[in-house]
Amino acid sequence: MAQNIFDDPTFFAEYKNLRENEPNYNDLLEQPAMRALLPDLTGKTVLDIGCGFGHNCRDFVGRGAKGVVGIDLSEKMLAVAKAENALPEIEYRRMDMAALDTLDETFDFVYSSLAFHYAADFPKLCADIYARLNPGGMLLFSQEHPFTTCSMHDSNHYVRDANGRAVAYALSHYAERGRRTGKWFVDDVENYHRTMGDIVTALARAGFLIDCMVEPEPSPEALQIRPGLEKEFIKPTFLIVRAEKCK
Amino acid sequence: MAQNIFDDPTFFAEYKNLRENEPNYNDLLEQPAMRALLPDLTGKTVLDIGCGFGHNCRDFVGRGAKGVVGIDLSEKMLAVAKAENALPEIEYRRMDMAALDTLDETFDFVYSSLAFHYAADFPKLCADIYARLNPGGMLLFSQEHPFTTCSMHDSNHYVRDANGRAVAYALSHYAERGRRTGKWFVDDVENYHRTMGDIVTALARAGFLIDCMVEPEPSPEALQIRPGLEKEFIKPTFLIVRAEKCK
Repeated sequence: MAQNIFDDPTFFAEYKNLRENEPNYNDLLEQPAMRALLPDLTGKTVLDIGCGFGHNCRDFVGRGAKGVVGIDLSEKMLAVAKAENALPEIEYRRMDMAALDTLDETFDFVYSSLAFHYAADFPKLCADIYARLNPGGMLLFSQEHPFTTCSMHDSNHYVRDANGRAVAYALSHYAERGRRTGKWFVDDVENYHRTMGDIVTALARAGFLIDCMVEPEPSPEALQIRPGLEKEFIKPTFLIVRAEKCK
Repeated sequence: MAQNIFDDPTFFAEYKNLRENEPNYNDLLEQPAMRALLPDLTGKTVLDIGCGFGHNCRDFVGRGAKGVVGIDLSEKMLAVAKAENALPEIEYRRMDMAALDTLDETFDFVYSSLAFHYAADFPKLCADIYARLNPGGMLLFSQEHPFTTCSMHDSNHYVRDANGRAVAYALSHYAERGRRTGKWFVDDVENYHRTMGDIVTALARAGFLIDCMVEPEPSPEALQIRPGLEKEFIKPTFLIVRAEKCK
């Protein structure tokens, strides 16, 4: 089972504040790139893994989806989703993404925004999603980039010039797969590092036809709002993959 | 047309010396990983792009290939191939990989070891290879890893601790695609940087089904021979992709 950090009261309060009040990386960088890769959802059934506050579930209905199941491990996140993004077409369920093999339904589209780096067993996750996709179905997911998840200790930092400008990223421990813990609002937030090769090969082994891979870059508008996003040209923060189940 | 650096007399002499006399990265790291991914070649036709000294062309015949075409831009490399690795089943041709669309034949297997980072137009290269593969055919290639090709100026280096031990890699300019020049035996050796996403997406757009991606790590034996290979656990030097043309 993945760590349920989003139900930690301090973490939850800080995360909610981040998403609601600041110009954040999700809204400026990851979400625009994900939206650009959405398929036509008219009449489709959708599974949103790690649906959080339910913004995307609601959006999918707006794009014509006939039914959306949003799963999340966090009761607090789901409480917000049910309060703020409830629609007759959406069902929110508390569920660990490690337990997808207990789902009876299949879906036309599986979506996941920035959740897969919390999964310990990525090959199983890929196989479970593949089995729950209808023929011709599509998976679109984002996760923290392996450049970001790899580093351990204090090696995860930018190298700066004499003026304090970031000029390079100190990447390390890339080949050392597995659990990482770090501070993000609270101590010991847990995620899992795997390499680019691991990710691509696990998708292929599960049967997926990889359609595209994107390492999102900020738009000029996003750079205006948050100049620090310039660092994305040094190394990307997020990785996005779209893959299909053959008909 | 790609830069013909291998016909530079100084470069050629230094490169030949490296490949023949030193325990080098190709033999310790890249070639074992490539061999592990070779398909059954019995009765197959093979195209080797950037065949160099022809070692692999000869190996493919030993593995049962019925015909091998080895292409390379360098006359000096091909002269060695013809002198040292000639077999009736092998034809060596001088050709730029940018001109693959002028080839009349098709092949069951296309192989390329550490040449694609010299290609300026990777989407065209993928499309040209796909068109020259028979249905069910396979592409296996290695190239310098985008972690290696990305950096510009003097930013491509390891960050060392107080004892001089490499602890991180200073990665930079990842999103800035295009031509890079650097010193490797001689000045101004040219190659082309593209991102992981560019590579995966270009293969997918060309029609390829990506089968696996490997970022090779040194074996314990290789580490004994060349302890500096430990740096491969910080960040990989090479990228290998295997992809299929659907039947």
